[in-house]
Amino acid sequence: MINIGIVGGTGYTGVELLRILATHPQAQITAITSRKEAGMPVAEMYPSLRGRIDLAFSTPDAAQLAECDVIFFATPHGVAMAQAPEMLAAGAKIIDLAADFRLQDVATFERWYGMPHACPDLLREAVYGLPELNREAIRVARVVGNPGCYPTSVQLGFAPLLKAQGLVDASHLIANCASGVSGAGRKAELGSLFPEAADSFKAYGVKGHRHGPEINEQLRRIAGVAGDDASVHCIFVPHLIPIIRGIHSTLYARLTAQGQATDLQALYESFYRGEPFVDVMPPGSAPETRSVRASNVARIAVHKPGPDTVMVLVVEDNLTKGASGQAVQCMNLLFGLPETTGLMHVPVLP
Amino acid sequence: MINIGIVGGTGYTGVELLRILATHPQAQITAITSRKEAGMPVAEMYPSLRGRIDLAFSTPDAAQLAECDVIFFATPHGVAMAQAPEMLAAGAKIIDLAADFRLQDVATFERWYGMPHACPDLLREAVYGLPELNREAIRVARVVGNPGCYPTSVQLGFAPLLKAQGLVDASHLIANCASGVSGAGRKAELGSLFPEAADSFKAYGVKGHRHGPEINEQLRRIAGVAGDDASVHCIFVPHLIPIIRGIHSTLYARLTAQGQATDLQALYESFYRGEPFVDVMPPGSAPETRSVRASNVARIAVHKPGPDTVMVLVVEDNLTKGASGQAVQCMNLLFGLPETTGLMHVPVLP
Amino acid sequence: MINIGIVGGTGYTGVELLRILATHPQAQITAITSRKEAGMPVAEMYPSLRGRIDLAFSTPDAAQLAECDVIFFATPHGVAMAQAPEMLAAGAKIIDLAADFRLQDVATFERWYGMPHACPDLLREAVYGLPELNREAIRVARVVGNPGCYPTSVQLGFAPLLKAQGLVDASHLIANCASGVSGAGRKAELGSLFPEAADSFKAYGVKGHRHGPEINEQLRRIAGVAGDDASVHCIFVPHLIPIIRGIHSTLYARLTAQGQATDLQALYESFYRGEPFVDVMPPGSAPETRSVRASNVARIAVHKPGPDTVMVLVVEDNLTKGASGQAVQCMNLLFGLPETTGLMHVPVLP
Amino acid sequence: MINIGIVGGTGYTGVELLRILATHPQAQITAITSRKEAGMPVAEMYPSLRGRIDLAFSTPDAAQLAECDVIFFATPHGVAMAQAPEMLAAGAKIIDLAADFRLQDVATFERWYGMPHACPDLLREAVYGLPELNREAIRVARVVGNPGCYPTSVQLGFAPLLKAQGLVDASHLIANCASGVSGAGRKAELGSLFPEAADSFKAYGVKGHRHGPEINEQLRRIAGVAGDDASVHCIFVPHLIPIIRGIHSTLYARLTAQGQATDLQALYESFYRGEPFVDVMPPGSAPETRSVRASNVARIAVHKPGPDTVMVLVVEDNLTKGASGQAVQCMNLLFGLPETTGLMHVPVLP
Repeated sequence: MINIGIVGGTGYTGVELLRILATHPQAQITAITSRKEAGMPVAEMYPSLRGRIDLAFSTPDAAQLAECDVIFFATPHGVAMAQAPEMLAAGAKIIDLAADFRLQDVATFERWYGMPHACPDLLREAVYGLPELNREAIRVARVVGNPGCYPTSVQLGFAPLLKAQGLVDASHLIANCASGVSGAGRKAELGSLFPEAADSFKAYGVKGHRHGPEINEQLRRIAGVAGDDASVHCIFVPHLIPIIRGIHSTLYARLTAQGQATDLQALYESFYRGEPFVDVMPPGSAPETRSVRASNVARIAVHKPGPDTVMVLVVEDNLTKGASGQAVQCMNLLFGLPETTGLMHVPVLP
Repeated sequence: MINIGIVGGTGYTGVELLRILATHPQAQITAITSRKEAGMPVAEMYPSLRGRIDLAFSTPDAAQLAECDVIFFATPHGVAMAQAPEMLAAGAKIIDLAADFRLQDVATFERWYGMPHACPDLLREAVYGLPELNREAIRVARVVGNPGCYPTSVQLGFAPLLKAQGLVDASHLIANCASGVSGAGRKAELGSLFPEAADSFKAYGVKGHRHGPEINEQLRRIAGVAGDDASVHCIFVPHLIPIIRGIHSTLYARLTAQGQATDLQALYESFYRGEPFVDVMPPGSAPETRSVRASNVARIAVHKPGPDTVMVLVVEDNLTKGASGQAVQCMNLLFGLPETTGLMHVPVLP
Repeated sequence: MINIGIVGGTGYTGVELLRILATHPQAQITAITSRKEAGMPVAEMYPSLRGRIDLAFSTPDAAQLAECDVIFFATPHGVAMAQAPEMLAAGAKIIDLAADFRLQDVATFERWYGMPHACPDLLREAVYGLPELNREAIRVARVVGNPGCYPTSVQLGFAPLLKAQGLVDASHLIANCASGVSGAGRKAELGSLFPEAADSFKAYGVKGHRHGPEINEQLRRIAGVAGDDASVHCIFVPHLIPIIRGIHSTLYARLTAQGQATDLQALYESFYRGEPFVDVMPPGSAPETRSVRASNVARIAVHKPGPDTVMVLVVEDNLTKGASGQAVQCMNLLFGLPETTGLMHVPVLP
Repeated sequence: MINIGIVGGTGYTGVELLRILATHPQAQITAITSRKEAGMPVAEMYPSLRGRIDLAFSTPDAAQLAECDVIFFATPHGVAMAQAPEMLAAGAKIIDLAADFRLQDVATFERWYGMPHACPDLLREAVYGLPELNREAIRVARVVGNPGCYPTSVQLGFAPLLKAQGLVDASHLIANCASGVSGAGRKAELGSLFPEAADSFKAYGVKGHRHGPEINEQLRRIAGVAGDDASVHCIFVPHLIPIIRGIHSTLYARLTAQGQATDLQALYESFYRGEPFVDVMPPGSAPETRSVRASNVARIAVHKPGPDTVMVLVVEDNLTKGASGQAVQCMNLLFGLPETTGLMHVPVLP
């Protein structure tokens, strides 16, 4: 059994972690902390967990956490990097669901998150936790920066094209994305109120969104170019959908002559062959977010809407493959378990 | 033209007032105040009003408000009663959309709203603003307490039965009600978040809801019994529907022998004959909330689901007939205008 | 392994059965039939099952089905009773998710479903598949009539009161219920269209709903009175909620003196002690449908909104505990498996 | 008063026409036909119109329709072109809300709509009813082909760029669009069921959508190039949003050097100056579909998400500006009324 600590489990990624870990055959949750809700039984806040999770939220206690094999940080940005060094010293591994260990470039982190990075050394060591593109590094990591929800879908969608080199004009990628409202977290903000977000649709973050630099940093890495090489650049535009869970990314790129001559369907199928959580759909498909609801699967369809344009459609559940499911997938890798352990939920449809 | 001031117009009843008044032929909005948003153009907060309302929110200014013919308070409970005396002294009429002038019994008000009443004398003078049941008193009022959203639908539904006397066991009325989320106001609270309220349904306020005493006080008045007479009593249970606007009330009462012998459909049709905003539907109907969306109409259907049981179904838009539309209906009465002036919006369906 | 046949698996109860059986450790799906979709891979109709269910729909084939240990009928009313005798003769057990084996009274069945009953003898033998109230009979049944979604919640809610005898006026029970739209099935009907059902709420079936007689027949059985004894009678009023899954029942009964003196919370806790799928919540609770989403759990809360009134709140997922989950629960009983086998899904929240 | 006939008013564009015309000061609805629902009062099908529209659906009757001043066809594709010649001969004007008079190229029409065009001569005469781009021609038209909902938003969004010439690479325009479900019409189809469309998001029509050729034909006309000139080409990808009403278009184009040097905000503001129904929002805005709900307004925001990329965001209500509101706007032009007559509904928010 893996001894697990969860720091800050009151949000949506927290409850999703608990939903997954409650039936994970190797997971033993030792502590789940929340300074604010200390003492409250987890199942009182989340009645869905009644009879399934018997813990109460506890005050963060370094000693107790240090005994864990792995600690998930489901906290606001900045918490994990403050506590990680002590936990690591005690022998725990770290999986951060916030952004502290995502952006490899410290300056970029500091510009977008408005705080100095507490441990740049650890950041250099940290591994970006997208198993399909980074599996071997994750297996041996001590610190995993779990990817952002949008970046997961955009990378899975563009990776086959970028890895292959020369197929698209990588300097003008477009990621037109849309997310359910749970992506904004369980925070009492006006914009996430039901009467504000229901029965409406809009773009947001139009002046810049934190997932933009993350997407570009990783796409460059996938393409094998330097971090500031403008030959790889993606415009990222998020939209808000009145659904609870789900991300849909509509990706566009202009094909080079070589790209136009390539069998893109075969490229994608070959790239993701054997991946348990990436499903390349048949030609002509339009994946729906509900087809992956509450599961760790991403589904991808490749299209050519014009002779020299490729369009890739990607869906994932932002809380599962886009957050807590992926975090557990990383945990499985960290501890040598089969990658699918505890993650074979069938999507809930309808 | 009626010179209108709106105090606290940033919430949902505020923007609904503005939607209605923007096309009301006799309305001239002079000031709309918000201490917090002073200086912000109304249309910046509510882009739906771009080009239609050119005012900015202003700091509450007694002098300016005192020049208004009527002042709507779309504020939290407690604000109107604090400011009403000064405004009245300056000659303005008051329509309060909060609860300050709804409950006629001071002790009940203080128990349920947790604050002393600032002006019990005014409360005694104030008129309960449900035109269908109280029209003549409203015409000559200085202070109108605009009814709560639930109480409006429950009273309209039970009134024909209670006024007729002797038709039902009035001591065991049940009002099983359900409201859209806008009823909770435009407040950043966790329970109103889209991911909390969408795709779910629940009862709430099960330990007691402020509209319960209001319903019971008014039902007793309609029935013509004393304020604490247990021979009229209604159990009120609200539920939360994942819709933006709309209230649906399912009312139950046990029929006496006299009630069983009464033609209830005829009773309701006769009671509401000529009412512009109450629509008694044909026998066998089940009104939908969307059939009154964004309009000032309430629709009612009467059923006998058992030989000695009457069931009344009532729908209204909680923001219109349940709040701002009804307030404008009262304003029309206060100023001698045809009651339907500016209120003939056709419901938006689908 | 249990060899399973599913007749008519293209609807919502069908796909929900498949979702559950896909991870049931003892289930082996042998055939899933659909005359209309024969040849189409199941996962093509339901992409959520890609990689999880490899079968295609097949033409109903008596020989193949006869080899199954159990056959689920997820078909329109009337199909199961036509095919059951042949399947039983071949040794298969039958679980019908439609209404063919629910109503024990043939005349009532024929009146409400508008067709003669094909096998009244089998109907007499059939067992009503509500395990919490009928467990031992199910264990030894050959034919299980799986309860309707509404009746499941109403019976679970009223059973402790009725079994105890003398606590309530059972002749005037009220079941004010509300269901998500999936309850109407996967049928192309105008009333179930998104633009018709979204952002609205209404009562329906106000002239009588097929679940009414089922509720009353079973409540009488629970109370131990004859099938036409008016001393037990429930008024049942369904409403339509714009959610996909979920039923919420608000039940009312008038308490006798004995009932008023009874500790109702203790009564319910005692009645359901040890039940894996019925959760009696703490006093003062208001269960949300989302707290059971995609799980086989029903949650119940008991209230006294007036001195002589009891109100019971019940939530369930209409497709799981209200249909396919309950059917699998019955299957587990039929085959001597632990009742919770394959049914321990944690509810999906948010 | 204008004498109005509506052919086929049972769908969503029909009821929206009725909602608008019910308060239009110059509209007199003489007949509304539906072969299937003949005899049914309009308000029985649409209770939102109770007390507002007293007509019943009638059997199409050429004589009666011929007496109308204008006939709206809210019918399936193919009906208007069959009946238009006779109506025109009788002196009526025609506004077709279907596609019969949208596509100017007969071959394109026949390929996409799968039927021969019944009156190519009339098609040549017909005017494309987008007032902002075609006002003078509409004023003097006899036959108006009312634009498709998506094409309206895409044209309004791209027009300033294309009219200006030389600002963008017009050969690689992208229109990433999303629509509410009412866009699919009031048809009993599985894909539009609430449980299929709610809480999900997907692209659709990925192999080609009928609005694609309409968009391209009109964009070429706006740009002033020939109908088959590949120098203007737009990839159009529609998505389905779980909202009732609303279209959101996210448009992308690559800027030329000249385009990069242009003040795009000023360009748009200047282009739409004085337009009553097109609102160019301030820099940095992200319009929401709800900000135009149930109104005839389109809102537009212009962005530069990269140095050589322009992104235009457009919202409209697909049933109002995207269909029936625009049709009434055209009617106002046809009859010399102020263009805004009867169309000044304030958007319903929240």
